[in-house]
Amino acid sequence: MVKGRLVSVEGPDGAGKTSVLEALLPKLKEQLGEEGVLVTREPGGIAISEKIREIILDVNHTSMDAKTELLLYIAARRQHMVEKILPALEKGQLVLLDRFIDSSVAYQGYGRGLDIAEIGWLNDYATDGYQPDKTLYFDVPSEIGLARIQESGQREVNRLDLETLELHQRVRQGYQALAQQHTDRIVVIDANQDLSQVVAEAESQLKQLLQDLS
Amino acid sequence: MVKGRLVSVEGPDGAGKTSVLEALLPKLKEQLGEEGVLVTREPGGIAISEKIREIILDVNHTSMDAKTELLLYIAARRQHMVEKILPALEKGQLVLLDRFIDSSVAYQGYGRGLDIAEIGWLNDYATDGYQPDKTLYFDVPSEIGLARIQESGQREVNRLDLETLELHQRVRQGYQALAQQHTDRIVVIDANQDLSQVVAEAESQLKQLLQDLS
Repeated sequence: MVKGRLVSVEGPDGAGKTSVLEALLPKLKEQLGEEGVLVTREPGGIAISEKIREIILDVNHTSMDAKTELLLYIAARRQHMVEKILPALEKGQLVLLDRFIDSSVAYQGYGRGLDIAEIGWLNDYATDGYQPDKTLYFDVPSEIGLARIQESGQREVNRLDLETLELHQRVRQGYQALAQQHTDRIVVIDANQDLSQVVAEAESQLKQLLQDLS
Repeated sequence: MVKGRLVSVEGPDGAGKTSVLEALLPKLKEQLGEEGVLVTREPGGIAISEKIREIILDVNHTSMDAKTELLLYIAARRQHMVEKILPALEKGQLVLLDRFIDSSVAYQGYGRGLDIAEIGWLNDYATDGYQPDKTLYFDVPSEIGLARIQESGQREVNRLDLETLELHQRVRQGYQALAQQHTDRIVVIDANQDLSQVVAEAESQLKQLLQDLS
């Protein structure tokens, strides 16, 4: 039924995910055609998920419980999945997804200390067990990732930026642990290199998937 | 640690839950003192949960997936639990809660067809497994409940009011099934009687709990 392929892109803000995806997109479209690729990120322009995300990131919501935060991400993921990702996969598109199930494990699990197995259950609930065909994890030391966000001024500071360096370091440990557990799915890309090198590595990792789709 | 008691009040809109609680409250305060009782309902005035509820009930959100709806209720429940219910129970209060875990089973499970065991898992996740000490289920034929809402004009029509009579009938079957499964916790009260009779039955069902707290 599902003819497309789902690639998730993971790593902290400041790892360069957006820049890499921007650089990759024209190359991918060259191979798969204009309609062959979809780049999206939660909440993905889905009205319901956008509203959920506003609640999550509101800097006034300092009383938000960690489980509430996780449940809101899971709800936004579910709606994005149903309204946008699954229809694209059914059309046979290559879907590049900026953050997905591993973000919940890294941030709410390793970062905030919620139970990892329970997060796995919730991820499966949101996605009906659907797993990415491949995950590109952009690894960068937390200090460098955070400094890049502050320097770039690309977007407003949100509630998660205000967390401590220590939380971001635990998030990185989480990603690294996931990469070791899922060597069949997750590829670690050193994001502390020139953008052109990072893009080249990412492109090379997608070669097989592109062949399958062509 | 928890010294209070939690009583949930369940049943469809139009069963008279609000009227019964209003009639009960002065009687309960007479016995337990002004500070001895808390009446609340999700979202319970908790800012985060109020915003979640706005998303759920927005009549424009016709594309909302059933799992998304459930996850949002669960998220709102979690925050209400952490910010308001648990602190009240720790203070030793009698907490009367208008709708709780059984609503999710009745509406999203029996009503919308989501898996009952998975809803149970999510309820436990939101409440850390906390169960009501007692549940008063106000049972009324769906036609009568719906007619009462339409006649009363007490509140604006929301997304759930627009559902079919058939859904509301499945919800009722769900409540009745729950009552049969949890005879130790759930008491069925015939809400198709005069308000004074319903209030008297509810009061009598709470007698033992009140003695424990006095």
